Amino acid sequence: MSNELKGLLVVISAPSGTGKTTLTHMLLKEFPNMEFSVSYTTRPPRPGEVNGKDYYFVDRETFERMVEEGDFLEWAEVYGNLYGTSKSQVLKALNEGKDIILDIDTQGALQVKKNFPEAVLIFVLPPSLSELERRLRRRGTDDEETIERRLKVAREEIKRAPLYDYIVVNDVLEVAFENLKSIIRAEKCKTERLAEQFEKVVKDPEIVTLLKGGRNE
Amino acid sequence: MSNELKGLLVVISAPSGTGKTTLTHMLLKEFPNMEFSVSYTTRPPRPGEVNGKDYYFVDRETFERMVEEGDFLEWAEVYGNLYGTSKSQVLKALNEGKDIILDIDTQGALQVKKNFPEAVLIFVLPPSLSELERRLRRRGTDDEETIERRLKVAREEIKRAPLYDYIVVNDVLEVAFENLKSIIRAEKCKTERLAEQFEKVVKDPEIVTLLKGGRNE
Repeated sequence: MSNELKGLLVVISAPSGTGKTTLTHMLLKEFPNMEFSVSYTTRPPRPGEVNGKDYYFVDRETFERMVEEGDFLEWAEVYGNLYGTSKSQVLKALNEGKDIILDIDTQGALQVKKNFPEAVLIFVLPPSLSELERRLRRRGTDDEETIERRLKVAREEIKRAPLYDYIVVNDVLEVAFENLKSIIRAEKCKTERLAEQFEKVVKDPEIVTLLKGGRNE
Repeated sequence: MSNELKGLLVVISAPSGTGKTTLTHMLLKEFPNMEFSVSYTTRPPRPGEVNGKDYYFVDRETFERMVEEGDFLEWAEVYGNLYGTSKSQVLKALNEGKDIILDIDTQGALQVKKNFPEAVLIFVLPPSLSELERRLRRRGTDDEETIERRLKVAREEIKRAPLYDYIVVNDVLEVAFENLKSIIRAEKCKTERLAEQFEKVVKDPEIVTLLKGGRNE
């Protein structure tokens, strides 16, 4: 166990094409203490994928037992495969002072918030749907049908953005990144997060005593 | 009336000697949209002080009528003079999209929070009381008695820090400043602040409609 301030659980969602992956990698570079959460899945590993790095590969029986035991912060079935975020693993990392970032869809994000209200939910919006469409086309990886489907899903996801704690518009990448960084820094200064661990941010025992005493007055 | 996002009311408190004035000036430089609130006072103007810039100088009768009419976000009597922050004036500036910063003591700050819960309260802590004492002595402006009094008041103020929204430790000035900036930026991304004014941050009317529709589902 480290003496670090308890870590933050940050959940980022955004419609495909909004720039979420780029922004997440920028955050991981900015905060050396931040890690991606490794998900569990029943999908068989693809060539080159490493157990414990890309995913934890488990059989359906193991996964379903974990569901029953409530060990998932969120889980979902996608095209017949199960995917989930382990609660015990995330909590262990947070207690060690690591910040964990989850890159999941709105349904998963809202499950996380329900199971772990301290999680910080950030929705990244594209500046407009027409700009999102342009970005998807420019990427050149999707056919027409896939682009149409992504735009339809984007509309559904955007409807749930108001349920998130923060909304960041990714119009100019640097501005969006500045806002994401600020959210993470600011969350670490929130009194409600610090209240149980004042001794970790304040070195002076007398100040810690005053802070703790003040709360009970 | 501008089309700016409604401004933030930021309240900063800190024991004398913590570096609050330096930090506040850095913030005003960083955020061109941010202004100091000009207080009302019954104290007579000192040579060089300008009405409407340093203070609004009013007589006791006017001040007391304002108190009765509930026009102060906070007010106090100090050494026989009345000082107060005008609610209507602050609200007008916020509605014009200006961010307002108040540099007041803990009693005033908690009055503001009570009268205007959207205010963002930030308490700046010194790294230790011994460091605070060193800084007060180094400043060389106070005699021994004043320093002792300031340290006593500091202890009382620190006890109320847990009632603030955020706590920032001013150990290294640049780090404290980075945290203050982040708090202000992050607050502007909070969904609860954006919810009534999505059209001001999102230019695409379709996304605005989706965001507004999502809230009522």
